[in-house]
Amino acid sequence: MPSSPIRKLVPFADIARSKGVHIYHLNIGQPDIPTPETMLNTIRNINLKVIEYSHSAGIESYRKKLVGYYAKFNINLNWEEIMITTGGSEAIEIGMMSCLNPGDEIIVPEPYYANYNGFSTQANVNIKAIPSSIKTGFALPPISEFENAITPKTKAILICNPSNPTGYLYTREELETLRKIVLKHDLYLFSDEVYREFCYDGREYISSMHLEGLDQHVVMMDSVSKRYSACGVRVGALISKNKEVLKAALRFAQARLSPPTLGQIAAEAAIDTPDSYFEEVHKEYVARRDFVVDSLNKIEGVFCPKPRGAFYCMAELPIDDADYFCQWLLESFSFNNQTVMLAPASGFYSEPSLGKKEVRIAYVLNLESLKNAMECLEEALKVYPGRTL
Amino acid sequence: MPSSPIRKLVPFADIARSKGVHIYHLNIGQPDIPTPETMLNTIRNINLKVIEYSHSAGIESYRKKLVGYYAKFNINLNWEEIMITTGGSEAIEIGMMSCLNPGDEIIVPEPYYANYNGFSTQANVNIKAIPSSIKTGFALPPISEFENAITPKTKAILICNPSNPTGYLYTREELETLRKIVLKHDLYLFSDEVYREFCYDGREYISSMHLEGLDQHVVMMDSVSKRYSACGVRVGALISKNKEVLKAALRFAQARLSPPTLGQIAAEAAIDTPDSYFEEVHKEYVARRDFVVDSLNKIEGVFCPKPRGAFYCMAELPIDDADYFCQWLLESFSFNNQTVMLAPASGFYSEPSLGKKEVRIAYVLNLESLKNAMECLEEALKVYPGRTL
Repeated sequence: MPSSPIRKLVPFADIARSKGVHIYHLNIGQPDIPTPETMLNTIRNINLKVIEYSHSAGIESYRKKLVGYYAKFNINLNWEEIMITTGGSEAIEIGMMSCLNPGDEIIVPEPYYANYNGFSTQANVNIKAIPSSIKTGFALPPISEFENAITPKTKAILICNPSNPTGYLYTREELETLRKIVLKHDLYLFSDEVYREFCYDGREYISSMHLEGLDQHVVMMDSVSKRYSACGVRVGALISKNKEVLKAALRFAQARLSPPTLGQIAAEAAIDTPDSYFEEVHKEYVARRDFVVDSLNKIEGVFCPKPRGAFYCMAELPIDDADYFCQWLLESFSFNNQTVMLAPASGFYSEPSLGKKEVRIAYVLNLESLKNAMECLEEALKVYPGRTL
Repeated sequence: MPSSPIRKLVPFADIARSKGVHIYHLNIGQPDIPTPETMLNTIRNINLKVIEYSHSAGIESYRKKLVGYYAKFNINLNWEEIMITTGGSEAIEIGMMSCLNPGDEIIVPEPYYANYNGFSTQANVNIKAIPSSIKTGFALPPISEFENAITPKTKAILICNPSNPTGYLYTREELETLRKIVLKHDLYLFSDEVYREFCYDGREYISSMHLEGLDQHVVMMDSVSKRYSACGVRVGALISKNKEVLKAALRFAQARLSPPTLGQIAAEAAIDTPDSYFEEVHKEYVARRDFVVDSLNKIEGVFCPKPRGAFYCMAELPIDDADYFCQWLLESFSFNNQTVMLAPASGFYSEPSLGKKEVRIAYVLNLESLKNAMECLEEALKVYPGRTL
């Protein structure tokens, strides 16, 4: 089992903190955006005598209400096609275990969400990464790369759209390309779409569930964590129109009894969150993204493609090794008694050397904090012993 | 992945309900006891702006407060030896994955909690069951049975104490026997102790953590579900003094990010539940157990040993096949427009034929309901076509 590349720097952060250094946490997707009042109020008014198990597939009224939520995105489901999970994490894990046998392979464009490694290890399946590049802003790798990676053991392609860690938003053309590969080789298309609310610049969100003729192929993994800034409720969903997949998934769900009841009650209430909440959040993230990406590209030797989705960007820095650099930022650097915590990109690649000069930045703090954080980063790059400029 | 033997009768229950038949649910460990007000009030007064991830190993203040909870049971821990999990289910799953390699074996006295099969399938390890018998009230099998079952692949023994499904409470002598086997063969002792609050007749609760010299061997799995009648919060714990086990467990915990925040806040508050709550609950369960066991043993051909712990009992019935019988109770029987739902014991044995005439009864309803349920069962046994008396 690999250790989490994002969380492995935590001991160094503890040391920095103990020295009184303030750390700007841009290393993890924990937004500072308030959780909608609708959710919090429902929890405060909870009227239960016993906090019982829910159905293993989730509270029925919640599953039914989610049908309306997805319909707004032109995803047409019946409630039995939605199985509630303990966070998006469990949706991915159960999805892999339900669709693949030990030893089977999943193709994933890299860089990819580091915990996919953990889930695939648990499921005893192998990830075959195919490279996308910061040079092209992490566009979908060419079809030939997929064709080259497919073996008789390949059972699925996994994408994250909009993407963590790259912020990349797939175009209709790219998704149509995936559709063809999936049909041609009879694969599952695992689609992690937990950032669907975060698409910018008027760009359309296109779900894998919009693709024609893939009802038996698509397994969508979802979570309420990001859209309602409620990561701690641990409520996600596994969604599919393939009845065999749902049946297998339910067996795994039954073994762990049920997803969290309190979180589900909060998540059901969250569906009534007014549009104005998302408009505010959207505006805020666009401002943050624009500020961060502009600031990064103004620093000598830094390159950061502008992402169209999620709340992450990837930057190439003029340094020898992002793992050393991120540790050094915590261990040996401070500016005005402040420093910044970033996620080295090596953990998002199957071959750590590929992301050696790259970091992932989560723009989950307010503009004032981001300004200070970018200033720290700029100063750090001037004095870091391993700088390459 | 096996389907849950307890939940597989659910479709038949749905049919009975749709015909207007009232079902007494004695098939599942979901108590009707109210969740302590301390927990519910804390949830109602929650004062968060953002429902954030917690630390992967759980909220620090909660882990620290649990030290005091366990100290009351003479289990002396430091807070870093307690890792919070998403229910006891996850503690068992992570425990297996952290301590065993694919293909390794765990010895479990049977009948055992059916979901152990699911967790071992997920962890790619094999359960070797050794039989305990209803004739001896499910006492620990003789040491020779363990010795016979041990192979070079055996890495652990798993017990549930007090036991689900049997209600059996291990004696000090039995635990000392286990201690010797564990030390002799250098095994882990997995100890699922989620029912520690439910020990009756003045019988002492003895934890595996009380055993001398097993610090590097014992992994305790725990949950707040049963003790606070709060199964839906999905909060458990994996507890060990073995640092390597804790380190491996944390990696699995990090992949799934964190246990539920709201549930942890409620569980932290629950530690202040007054003793009077447990005294009431204890009295209630003793009365229920006594009533159910006496009622069962009064029915001709029924044998039910009196359990000393948890809130389950196992009964041998004068029938051909408990699986048919439990389905028939829902599909074809009613008495005063009522019926009873039981768990056929076949699912608790590695070899389903072993439990063919046995059922597990969870006495999780009030005395009035139990009275009606026992009456239903008695009437049913008079007319069931597969009766053997």
